[in-house]
Amino acid sequence: MPKLYDCDISGSCYKIRLFLNILDVSYEAVPVDFVNKEHKTAPYLALNPFGEIPIFEDGDLRLRDAQAILIYLARKYDKSGNWFPEDARSQGQIAQWLSTGGGEIMNAAGARLVKVLNYPLDLEKLHAGANRVFGIMDAHLASREFLELGHPTIADIACFPYTALAGEGGIDLAPYPNVLAWIERMKRLPGFVGMPGIAKP
Amino acid sequence: MPKLYDCDISGSCYKIRLFLNILDVSYEAVPVDFVNKEHKTAPYLALNPFGEIPIFEDGDLRLRDAQAILIYLARKYDKSGNWFPEDARSQGQIAQWLSTGGGEIMNAAGARLVKVLNYPLDLEKLHAGANRVFGIMDAHLASREFLELGHPTIADIACFPYTALAGEGGIDLAPYPNVLAWIERMKRLPGFVGMPGIAKP
Repeated sequence: MPKLYDCDISGSCYKIRLFLNILDVSYEAVPVDFVNKEHKTAPYLALNPFGEIPIFEDGDLRLRDAQAILIYLARKYDKSGNWFPEDARSQGQIAQWLSTGGGEIMNAAGARLVKVLNYPLDLEKLHAGANRVFGIMDAHLASREFLELGHPTIADIACFPYTALAGEGGIDLAPYPNVLAWIERMKRLPGFVGMPGIAKP
Repeated sequence: MPKLYDCDISGSCYKIRLFLNILDVSYEAVPVDFVNKEHKTAPYLALNPFGEIPIFEDGDLRLRDAQAILIYLARKYDKSGNWFPEDARSQGQIAQWLSTGGGEIMNAAGARLVKVLNYPLDLEKLHAGANRVFGIMDAHLASREFLELGHPTIADIACFPYTALAGEGGIDLAPYPNVLAWIERMKRLPGFVGMPGIAKP
């Protein structure tokens, strides 16, 4: 059975839990004590030298990085072929938002680490970066139900968690009504599961 | 003909120029005056609200983000099928390094912006981040010729430019002999082109 090195409160791990549940793939969760920095200990670094969660293991394959794992899961387990279609155009369009989900949106994740776990990061800078990307997403979603292709893809999965958790980092999403509507749309996907801070509707 | 919004001194644009040349795809380069921040002007932001180079246009498709463009180009123009193979395992393995190329390695890009263009960024923190990822790459490449699959893929293309340019950011690669050997291997790829700061052998 595939194995997910997982932490309840991690939005990055939740990306994988959410997608596994949507795809109806069974897995074993291996809890990682993120608060006490188990992901920076030698045994964990032997599995992922980047010292980050999640890790996903499937047979003899071990993958790090939430976005890479989403691509793998879509190609391997998505029978619909819709979550990461194989044509060049779709993959390119979706991959833009995988970069955003692992990049600019992580400003919101950083702000949450400051607020919830007292990480010594520059909150003002993180808020500015997060508000900038949420503004871009809001304009993009003004004419779209989902980020690309007119239906849910792994682009949405990659961008959803830390957007939906933005409030825990002290970021108000009220100025971004299209983002808020998209969050509600995501919560109605078949197979949706929540996490601490993201309630099922 | 496809169009690349391009800047000579940008390692991110160079990822695309290099791969287009390897794939032998003709394109029109549209110069962007990065030094004078043309990428932050309203006309450019209308094309890419993230205000980043490169942008790639192919027919009616417009893509931002170097990594997303690499995926598109591989799926669309790579007749060998080797640069981003379509199976789940290969795509997952490669995508890990797309994240690294657009993520941790950008510490080296940031250091270069400080040194070359006097950007007001935290050089010490950027150097620490860059040295950390180069150490991980060096260990990974101790037993490998290329980052994944035993042959060149877009993982290598995504990670190559800002690694090879690290010296311009004041980062010494001498402690990373396997990275240095990989850089030389990359320079011998058929279709290789250099850029300012990365000489052809």
